[in-house]
Amino acid sequence: MTGRSMTVEPDGFPGVTLVGGGPGDRDLITVAGLRAVLGADVVVTDRLAPAGLLAELSPGVEVIDVAKVPRGRSTAQERINELLVDRARAGRSVVRLKGGDGYVFGRGFEEVLALQDAGVPVRVIPGLSSSLAVPALAGIPVTHRGVVHDFTVVSGHLPPGHPDSLVDWAAVAALRGTLVLMMAVENGGAIADTLLAAGRPGSQPAAVVCDGSLPTERVVRTTLADLGRVIATERIRPPAVVVVGEVAAL
Amino acid sequence: MTGRSMTVEPDGFPGVTLVGGGPGDRDLITVAGLRAVLGADVVVTDRLAPAGLLAELSPGVEVIDVAKVPRGRSTAQERINELLVDRARAGRSVVRLKGGDGYVFGRGFEEVLALQDAGVPVRVIPGLSSSLAVPALAGIPVTHRGVVHDFTVVSGHLPPGHPDSLVDWAAVAALRGTLVLMMAVENGGAIADTLLAAGRPGSQPAAVVCDGSLPTERVVRTTLADLGRVIATERIRPPAVVVVGEVAAL
Repeated sequence: MTGRSMTVEPDGFPGVTLVGGGPGDRDLITVAGLRAVLGADVVVTDRLAPAGLLAELSPGVEVIDVAKVPRGRSTAQERINELLVDRARAGRSVVRLKGGDGYVFGRGFEEVLALQDAGVPVRVIPGLSSSLAVPALAGIPVTHRGVVHDFTVVSGHLPPGHPDSLVDWAAVAALRGTLVLMMAVENGGAIADTLLAAGRPGSQPAAVVCDGSLPTERVVRTTLADLGRVIATERIRPPAVVVVGEVAAL
Repeated sequence: MTGRSMTVEPDGFPGVTLVGGGPGDRDLITVAGLRAVLGADVVVTDRLAPAGLLAELSPGVEVIDVAKVPRGRSTAQERINELLVDRARAGRSVVRLKGGDGYVFGRGFEEVLALQDAGVPVRVIPGLSSSLAVPALAGIPVTHRGVVHDFTVVSGHLPPGHPDSLVDWAAVAALRGTLVLMMAVENGGAIADTLLAAGRPGSQPAAVVCDGSLPTERVVRTTLADLGRVIATERIRPPAVVVVGEVAAL
């Protein structure tokens, strides 16, 4: 090995940096994201941010886990926005650290808008989206030459038919490409039923990856027809990424 | 700033590591990817891998740009596979460094299969896919609460109707979510026409991001109806990422 080490220097941005922390392993953050975290006075984090990285921060860094912040009369997101604005206005370099990527079902753009409204400088450092990185680490490519040239990532946090749902599940079912379902543990069975009713073949391979990138990672292979049953019998718990398509059997 | 630096140690894997290098900026590789690159005896790279990182490698590292490898009677991909197997069998720690993520239209899985067939140990470190990171860096979130809960990433390297195309463009047009078109500069006009003919509204916002994450980055905003014309008049050249949907106007 000809290798040598490299020093990553901290980067203190005067405002708020939204950092995508990746799927969970501490080394799956970007170098740019690590620089921002190392330079932060305050790190505002939540449940899916890489815990191994937080454990290595200097004692002087204020770490706020927003999953534990009391809400009072404002919503959780309003409270987070207030915290970010407050700490930045106090002159502190703030990192908002999220699991995955902040713009893939991460509500990152809501925080950017709130910070811009408040006149606080904000920048965004993307992270590995779990929608792609978790399947990849489990050996599942979302595209493969000669097999599939498109993929669709859908939030499963609302069941099909829910009045607030913005997803046209029949259109999703008609696609030839890979489907990646995020936050779909609770509604996985209902989503599978809807895809089947819209004509997606029940024999299509499916895979569920739990705790992707972590030592507790687990991969369960099944079919679209059996997805709902398998989620129940295998006692799948979030966080999990569901892949539906030929690539799930490669 | 309470920051401190951190040392990233090299990691020499006995075989081949496929590393996604991210969209181009040298700091947008993951820490795990950087460790692998720092520990490599051989780096096999191509046109879209982060050039800034390659420039910092030790002089003793063999860097092979496969865009410049003579092909002879084998295809470019066969030649790459042969190179990876050859160097790994010689006992060298090999990194296959690609732009973006190796599993998002990167042919990474083909290389994994070839290495497995040859009995060479192989591992995969995901990278930031340009399909998500390039829009994000240009201020475009692929999802946004209350606006869109799904997105589809499609390769545009073949025009609609091409016999080898695996994409059902009518099904893609019917989706409510964000569309991200990769490698679509040449066929962008034909793709837009196909989407319009299948009922996607011409007024839908579109954005083209060229050279995402690099100092030469350029963002052009338009509509789906005008996409083909704008690609021509603005002299758009690859690499570019095209985003179609409400988020392109946020």
